[in-house]
Amino acid sequence: MTVITSTDNRIVKLAASLSEKKYRDREGLYIVEGPNLVRELSANGKARFIFIRAESASEEAMEIAERADESGLAVYKVNDSVFSKVTQTETPQGILAVFEKPSRSREDFFKTAGDKNILVVDRVQDPGNVGTLLRTCEAAGFAGAMIIKGSGDPFSPKAVRASAGSSARLPLIFAESINDGAALLKKMGKRLIATDMKGKAFWDADLAKNCALTVSNEGNGASGELLQLADEIISIPMTGQVESLNAAIACGIITFESRRQNL
Amino acid sequence: MTVITSTDNRIVKLAASLSEKKYRDREGLYIVEGPNLVRELSANGKARFIFIRAESASEEAMEIAERADESGLAVYKVNDSVFSKVTQTETPQGILAVFEKPSRSREDFFKTAGDKNILVVDRVQDPGNVGTLLRTCEAAGFAGAMIIKGSGDPFSPKAVRASAGSSARLPLIFAESINDGAALLKKMGKRLIATDMKGKAFWDADLAKNCALTVSNEGNGASGELLQLADEIISIPMTGQVESLNAAIACGIITFESRRQNL
Repeated sequence: MTVITSTDNRIVKLAASLSEKKYRDREGLYIVEGPNLVRELSANGKARFIFIRAESASEEAMEIAERADESGLAVYKVNDSVFSKVTQTETPQGILAVFEKPSRSREDFFKTAGDKNILVVDRVQDPGNVGTLLRTCEAAGFAGAMIIKGSGDPFSPKAVRASAGSSARLPLIFAESINDGAALLKKMGKRLIATDMKGKAFWDADLAKNCALTVSNEGNGASGELLQLADEIISIPMTGQVESLNAAIACGIITFESRRQNL
Repeated sequence: MTVITSTDNRIVKLAASLSEKKYRDREGLYIVEGPNLVRELSANGKARFIFIRAESASEEAMEIAERADESGLAVYKVNDSVFSKVTQTETPQGILAVFEKPSRSREDFFKTAGDKNILVVDRVQDPGNVGTLLRTCEAAGFAGAMIIKGSGDPFSPKAVRASAGSSARLPLIFAESINDGAALLKKMGKRLIATDMKGKAFWDADLAKNCALTVSNEGNGASGELLQLADEIISIPMTGQVESLNAAIACGIITFESRRQNL
């Protein structure tokens, strides 16, 4: 293991820059924090290097770092000030890794998906919400997600944490607008489904296969444009005086209704 | 409207103390922030007094305060330092109200509930999660919620905000332990249903009526005690490598499956 003590070190500066989407995009890298996620994603993703906090890493974190070091991965022992320059977590456990962002062609995405459902993340802004959506739709057996521009970045530290690894595992593609995304989805044989107050009750809709289920912006919901483009509009009928559900809850309800219909 | 400029004022100290559960319990009061919630809950709850930020309240907030003042409610015009001593929100809109906590006897709770389902909040710690659970189960047509000791307080500012008013609208009762709660629920004819990895798939369980559906602690899930006490254990079958869903998502899925079965 190499020791780094200066926050001016090139590797430290690179890792710290990854808190910004601009640099994650430019470098094709992102940060994963904590022993559980670092260990788990090492099996799925390509780790570039690891930072271990020399003074106060947990035993578990230290073991992971040692094993990675033995396997030939670059592991840097850093002090507290270097570590805290890079981490986004309030109570970090002393290990983080920089991974290469998985990249996938659109052809490959749809080939892998087959007739399975995918999720469309339509300008959901909070990265924590985006992460939760990905985790939920992976659990529901969805084949992947399309992220529409204006959504939180699934590779931001907060999204990676909330996704509990789904950001890295779940196949993702990106679209510049709902227009672009919808055109591609239809070309690939997916029915675009929007969620809105004025739709058919979700339990009456066929959500088993070949659906692109949309979860829209937390504050504004589905746009007029999406409602125009959608092949079907579904709603989650509510009682009481509740005006709306949060986006992640809505996602859980419709994705697991899809799962239920598949059995 | 009375003007208050000192943070040492008795009313200001009372309002500020309500950020702590101990004082909310002692005074039987809680804080509601923002024009939407203050207006909406004024219809349901008993407002004791209102603080309006003199320098920078929004027009909407000012209108609500004026109408409340005309109706005879105590409205205090306060300066920025007084307001920020009381508020918990990062970007407050210049209005908050102190409400009386609704209180409800156990008899009344079960009488109102009839054969409808209720939610059991079993040591869910994050107050934001607790608020989201209440909002979700109100939307799903549940009659109320039982809060087990060790859960976040539904009347904390964060829970009130996340609940979007459900904390105040939804009938609530409290239990000292899952043992106590389970005994009461069974006496009142409710089937206690726990959620755990090793249960029957939720879509195969009868969740339509007279259920007490449990959502358990975020980290640990259902306790051995709860699994012993439960009349039925249900699971949310997941695919992929996801180990668990977040508590609020799980709640959305099972409460809306119950709603679906009721139609």
